[in-house]
Amino acid sequence: MVGGGQLARMTHEAGIPLGIKFKLLSDTPQDSAAQVVGDVVVGDYRDIHTLRAFAQGCDVITFDHEHVPTELLQVLEADGIPVRPGPDALVHAQDKGVMRARLDALGIPSPRHRLVKDAADVAAFAAEGADGGDGFPVVLKTVRGGYDGKGVWVVRGPGDEAASEPFRAGVPVLAEEKVDFARELAANVVRSPHGQAVAYPVVESIQVDGVCDTVIAPAPELPEDEAVRAQELALTIARELGVVGHLAVELFETRDGRILVNELAMRPHNSGHWTQDGAVTSQFANHVRAVLDLPLGDPRPRARWTVMANVLGGDYPDMYGAYLHCMARDPQLKIHMYGKDVKPGRKVGHVNVHGDDLADVRERAAHAAGYLRGTITE
Amino acid sequence: MVGGGQLARMTHEAGIPLGIKFKLLSDTPQDSAAQVVGDVVVGDYRDIHTLRAFAQGCDVITFDHEHVPTELLQVLEADGIPVRPGPDALVHAQDKGVMRARLDALGIPSPRHRLVKDAADVAAFAAEGADGGDGFPVVLKTVRGGYDGKGVWVVRGPGDEAASEPFRAGVPVLAEEKVDFARELAANVVRSPHGQAVAYPVVESIQVDGVCDTVIAPAPELPEDEAVRAQELALTIARELGVVGHLAVELFETRDGRILVNELAMRPHNSGHWTQDGAVTSQFANHVRAVLDLPLGDPRPRARWTVMANVLGGDYPDMYGAYLHCMARDPQLKIHMYGKDVKPGRKVGHVNVHGDDLADVRERAAHAAGYLRGTITE
Repeated sequence: MVGGGQLARMTHEAGIPLGIKFKLLSDTPQDSAAQVVGDVVVGDYRDIHTLRAFAQGCDVITFDHEHVPTELLQVLEADGIPVRPGPDALVHAQDKGVMRARLDALGIPSPRHRLVKDAADVAAFAAEGADGGDGFPVVLKTVRGGYDGKGVWVVRGPGDEAASEPFRAGVPVLAEEKVDFARELAANVVRSPHGQAVAYPVVESIQVDGVCDTVIAPAPELPEDEAVRAQELALTIARELGVVGHLAVELFETRDGRILVNELAMRPHNSGHWTQDGAVTSQFANHVRAVLDLPLGDPRPRARWTVMANVLGGDYPDMYGAYLHCMARDPQLKIHMYGKDVKPGRKVGHVNVHGDDLADVRERAAHAAGYLRGTITE
Repeated sequence: MVGGGQLARMTHEAGIPLGIKFKLLSDTPQDSAAQVVGDVVVGDYRDIHTLRAFAQGCDVITFDHEHVPTELLQVLEADGIPVRPGPDALVHAQDKGVMRARLDALGIPSPRHRLVKDAADVAAFAAEGADGGDGFPVVLKTVRGGYDGKGVWVVRGPGDEAASEPFRAGVPVLAEEKVDFARELAANVVRSPHGQAVAYPVVESIQVDGVCDTVIAPAPELPEDEAVRAQELALTIARELGVVGHLAVELFETRDGRILVNELAMRPHNSGHWTQDGAVTSQFANHVRAVLDLPLGDPRPRARWTVMANVLGGDYPDMYGAYLHCMARDPQLKIHMYGKDVKPGRKVGHVNVHGDDLADVRERAAHAAGYLRGTITE
C-alpha cells in the first residue's frame, strides 16, 4: 500500500486476519501506518525509482491516497504489477474536471459546473444560472489536490475577491453551482476485478467547517427508492469507470429529493469508518479482498444504527488521558486513534457507537469525540 | 508483549485502534506476530539480559504465553516495570501443582488429584478412588510445560506402562481422576489492576484428539444458574489469585451437573477467539485495556450464537487458494489466519461464524475450517 496515513493503518489492521503480507511505502517512519506495520519502506511515492523498487515482489499495489501521478502508475503497470484501482479509474478521483466530464457522459447528475479560466468566466458562469437572482454563490475548486475544504473557494457575489484567488496558482479551476442541499449523503461500494460488487447502506455525512464531523448509518428517514437510486448510481460509476476496491461517492440530497454527485474517492473513506464496528465486513476488509480479487464480504449492518464521530485535535497533546473517562462512561464505545501528533483541528481518530436508539447513539458518539478533543469536560 | 505467537498477533491487531505503541519480543522474525508488528525485538525470553533490555521504556509487560520463568519476572518487577499478570498470579497457570493446591484452599472444585512420584503412587491414588471399580483410568500431567495434550498421559489400568513414563524425565507429576464429563466449558473473565472485572458468556469447548476444535458461544442449553456459578468461580479465581488481564478457566461439566476446574490460562485464550466477531469487546481488546489499567469494554455477545472452529494444517501448504471457495460460499464468514507455515495438525488459524440458527452456524464454521484444512473438498 502506498501512503502511510490512517487509511493504510486501518487497512493493515483489517488485513492481519487474512494472513496476507502487507508492505507499506511511507513518507516517514512516524506516519500513522508506519508505526504499526512490520514491513515498511520509507520513501517518496513521487519518485519513480522508489516506487518501482517498492513494487518489486508485490502481487498488487493499492493506495492510502489518490496523489500518485498517473504516469508513474502506468510505469508500474508496464512493469507487470497490477495497480488497483488502476490509473484509468483513479484519474477520476484525482481530477475533478475529468470526473465531471465523465459523469456527464454517463448521464449521472452533478451540480451545474464548468471549467473556468478567470474571474470573467466565473461571472459568466454565474449569470447563466441566475434564475431570477444573480447566480451566486459559486464554488470554485482546483481540479487537483483539494480535500476537506482545501482548494475550495466560495464566491458570494460579483465583486467577491475569492473569484480571482484560485487562478493565481495557474492551475485549472472548476466552477460549480453552490447546491442548496438538504443534507450530504455517501454511497459506498466495493468492486473487484472480476466484477463482483457490494453496496453498503447509504449514510448521512454531517460536515462542520468543511470537515466531516459525524456519519450516521443508515441515513435516517431516507426513502428506500432514493437509497436504492444512490446505491445504483455508485455501482454504475464503479462499473463504468472500472474502479477496483472501495469507492466512496459523496452526494448532495437536494431539498426537492434529487441526488447529485459531489466528489469521488477511490480508497477506504471517512464515510465508511462506521463499518469497522457496524457492518459484517468493514470497508477496509472489503477493500483488501477486492484488491486481491477475493470474493467480497457481506456489507450489511450488524446494528440498527451506527454513528461515527471524528476526533479532531484540541489544545491538549495527550488524548489518552481522556480514555479513562470515555471508556468508563460507555463500555460499548469503540475508539479508533491514528497515532498522530495532535494539532488543533487535525483528524487524529474517530469513535463508533452502535445501538437501537439513534438519539442515544448520536449523543454517545458526540460526547466521546468532544471529550477526547477537550471541548467537553464532563 | 513477550512471545510472537498468534495471541500476540491478534493482541496487536486489537491494540491498533487504541493508538498504543506495541513492542514485541519474538523468538524469530518469522513468528506469527513478528510478521505484522512494527516494533520487534528478536531474542530469547529466557535470557534475563534480553528481557531487561526489551523491557526498557515499556510502560507495562504482558505475555503471549506462560513460559517466562517466575524469577525473571521478579527481576523485571524489581526494575520497576509492571508485569501483568504478575509472577505471583502467573505461577498458577505455570504450575498445575501450585494451581491445584490454591484452588483447594479456596474451596473451588477440582478433579480429585495428588502429586505423585512413581507408579506405585499412581496405583495407590487409583485405589483410593476405586468406588467399586479399580479407580482407573487416571490422568498424569507434568506440572509444568504441558498444553494441547502434550505432557499428559492417560493410565488405563494397573498394568499400563503409561504409569511409569512421565517419571522418566524426573519432573514433578500430578495425578488426577479422569473425569467422566458431559462436556467441557470455559469461563473467560478479564480483570484490571484496579479490580474491575468483566465476565464473557460461558462457552462450550469441543476437543478432538486433545486439541480444541470448536467453541460455541454461549454454551447451548446451559442452565442459567450453572452459567452464573461458572462465571462467579472464574471471577473468584481472578480476584483471589490477583490475575490482571484475561483469565480462561477451562471447566468440566459432569454428568450430574457439577463444575470442576480443569486448567487455567492467564492470557487471551482459544476459547475466547469467538469474541473477535461475536462480542462487543474482544478478549484481545479487553486484555490490552486491563493490562493498561483502562476501564474494560462490554463483554456481551452481539449475536445469538457465535461458533469458532480452529483451522489445523493439512496436506497442502497453501491455504490461501481455499479462500476463493470459502468466501464465495459464505460472505459472512470471518477468517483469522496466523501467517504460520502449515504443518499437519498445527493450529494455523480459526474461523468465526455468527447467526441466529445454531445448526446453520455450526455447519458453516465446520465447513470452512475443514475446507481450509483440505478435509472437505466441495
